[in-house]
Amino acid sequence: MADKTIYRASTTAPVNIAVVKYWGKRDAQLNLPTNSSLSVTLSQSDLRTHTTASCSASYPEGDSLLLNGEPSDVTGHRTQSCFRELRARRAALEAADPSLPKLSTLPLRLVSENNFPTAAGLASSAAGFAAFVRAIANLYALPDSPAQLSLIARQGSGSACRSLFGGYVAWRMGSRPDGSDSLADQVAEASHWPDMRALILVVSAAKKGVASTSGMQRTVATSGLFQRRIDDVVPRHMDAMEEAIRDRDFAAFAEVTMRDSNSFHATCLDTYPPIFYLNDVSRAAIGAVEAVNEAAGRTVAAYTFDAGPNAVVYYLQQDEEMVVGTFSALLGDVTGWKDGVQSYKSPVVLVERLSEVIKTGVARVIMTGVGEGPVKTDEHLVGEDGQPIVR
Amino acid sequence: MADKTIYRASTTAPVNIAVVKYWGKRDAQLNLPTNSSLSVTLSQSDLRTHTTASCSASYPEGDSLLLNGEPSDVTGHRTQSCFRELRARRAALEAADPSLPKLSTLPLRLVSENNFPTAAGLASSAAGFAAFVRAIANLYALPDSPAQLSLIARQGSGSACRSLFGGYVAWRMGSRPDGSDSLADQVAEASHWPDMRALILVVSAAKKGVASTSGMQRTVATSGLFQRRIDDVVPRHMDAMEEAIRDRDFAAFAEVTMRDSNSFHATCLDTYPPIFYLNDVSRAAIGAVEAVNEAAGRTVAAYTFDAGPNAVVYYLQQDEEMVVGTFSALLGDVTGWKDGVQSYKSPVVLVERLSEVIKTGVARVIMTGVGEGPVKTDEHLVGEDGQPIVR
Repeated sequence: MADKTIYRASTTAPVNIAVVKYWGKRDAQLNLPTNSSLSVTLSQSDLRTHTTASCSASYPEGDSLLLNGEPSDVTGHRTQSCFRELRARRAALEAADPSLPKLSTLPLRLVSENNFPTAAGLASSAAGFAAFVRAIANLYALPDSPAQLSLIARQGSGSACRSLFGGYVAWRMGSRPDGSDSLADQVAEASHWPDMRALILVVSAAKKGVASTSGMQRTVATSGLFQRRIDDVVPRHMDAMEEAIRDRDFAAFAEVTMRDSNSFHATCLDTYPPIFYLNDVSRAAIGAVEAVNEAAGRTVAAYTFDAGPNAVVYYLQQDEEMVVGTFSALLGDVTGWKDGVQSYKSPVVLVERLSEVIKTGVARVIMTGVGEGPVKTDEHLVGEDGQPIVR
Repeated sequence: MADKTIYRASTTAPVNIAVVKYWGKRDAQLNLPTNSSLSVTLSQSDLRTHTTASCSASYPEGDSLLLNGEPSDVTGHRTQSCFRELRARRAALEAADPSLPKLSTLPLRLVSENNFPTAAGLASSAAGFAAFVRAIANLYALPDSPAQLSLIARQGSGSACRSLFGGYVAWRMGSRPDGSDSLADQVAEASHWPDMRALILVVSAAKKGVASTSGMQRTVATSGLFQRRIDDVVPRHMDAMEEAIRDRDFAAFAEVTMRDSNSFHATCLDTYPPIFYLNDVSRAAIGAVEAVNEAAGRTVAAYTFDAGPNAVVYYLQQDEEMVVGTFSALLGDVTGWKDGVQSYKSPVVLVERLSEVIKTGVARVIMTGVGEGPVKTDEHLVGEDGQPIVR
């Protein structure tokens, strides 16, 4: 009789928000970037993907993924690359130690859930692929380091490689054609600079604009300014950002963050036809950050925008009253404020028009901060009977 | 008894809208640009400055300028440079021919009027300084060519040098430190490609953003991408644009126009702190141009934006029904449509949100087209008694 064991392993993985942006592939097949990038891993209390990987000879043939309760396609090139790479590593272990169960030959069943609404327009693919790879690596008991696993996650979604670490994480672009040196490494633990906070402004009606994969390829192909960003701007920003993190220098961190976001969106605008992710609400958020910095007489907040209009505002815990208080005063009672925020006082008076635009344009906020990398958990989303647990 | 003669000369001068943009000075004192630029001179039937220069020993001491009925400051560095340069040329003539009246010694009185509302947010300084220089050159009977006069107008306002010619006009950046080779020349007469039309969408509540003089200096000082624009992008755009104009190739003209506008605004966004001139209405206008080109199956329209949210849409006369019809259908009965436009049919259906944004955001339109350079006129804005004529 065949072994009907249900093998299971689970992990959670974090979202990361880049402060030096990934935009542009030099190899679309392998997800190799045109430039290095650097991100802050955000706390999984607020934003995380929880994934259980399981395998069993009792499962029907073929791998499957249930994402937020919905069956998800796994036949795509990127997902297949991750399956293939992870199975190959498990198969090597099995070949070296014949006593190991032949998990690499069994169908995989993955069940995954986000603790944040997909509708929020937050890039969930980074947390998603990081959890996917980490969960299967746990299931297969792979000895690979997070950096080694980041090589695999990168092939699922470029920025996913950075979600295999907590804290402050660089994705080194590498130079080898096979991508074997294009991986993530940890610049600093979350505990090195634990008071980094992030306020995310989720913009209403943020219908998906140009998808990032096709968008970045159009930028590489058509932007006259892009080459300068990758040759000159990003290398300077990477150096300055690593130094700022090392020295816990928020003013320097903030300047590079804002400059790099602007530089990235400038190359989007310089794409032909142009790509716009920032809208009038985003501009108003930039205005609000500039206003709070001016009122403070020093840099207390920094904005950054991914491929969409949502603003992520970084600040330090000690400036929370000033920074969050300003946005709270502007936005009123949208969803997402944590306890006590309503009593914060803001030193900033924004011009009325800015205030109006931002007030009507932000649907909810998420308050979070720097956090840890993937965490193994025994809370499985697949039951002992092999069935997905619906919650 | 002193000569009380009132000497008078008058001219009109056109607005120009660049298709390869001027943004950045290498010498702020002399108004020397970081790159060449190229513009279309617009018809003076629709947009022009009318200026009378007069001088007389009977005038009180000191030069003066009445602009749209209001006294205007002439003590600024730029205006003083123009006065000084023009007087020096007149003085040289007087020295060579002692029979000439010594106009260079007399106080100048200038009276100037625009035929378009200042509130429209159209850059009027180009037409203004071109008319200013041309009127005084006429008064002084200077033999200087328009290209020579463009050297002077440039010192008043950079883009003014291009308004000394009609048709299609380049401003060559030059290389000499004294600016003596940074002047305008005519790439083609208006009659070479007379069917070029422009529809200007004047955006409501377009309160002045960052002034272009300080804005461009901030870009030069802070944008990491800017150097690439001036080293690589603009030289390519200049060559391609001159070729497109020579060949009357609208598709090529349009592509360079749109790419160059995007490149310029990208460097503004890449400025630190960032400069935004485009807003959601501008983006909607870009969307409408993309939609009409798609519906036509060829390039029938091109957008460009100066240092503000107003869109200028270039198109050819033969495509007026399609292009203007689309904007007319979108905008309804704002001010500025010419006769017959309401009967145009549009092939374009825009998504509702785009349509809503553009409809509520555009205050008026101006329909115009390529036109001639400054025209001498005997209609004076200073009476025979030396008094300004108030109309």
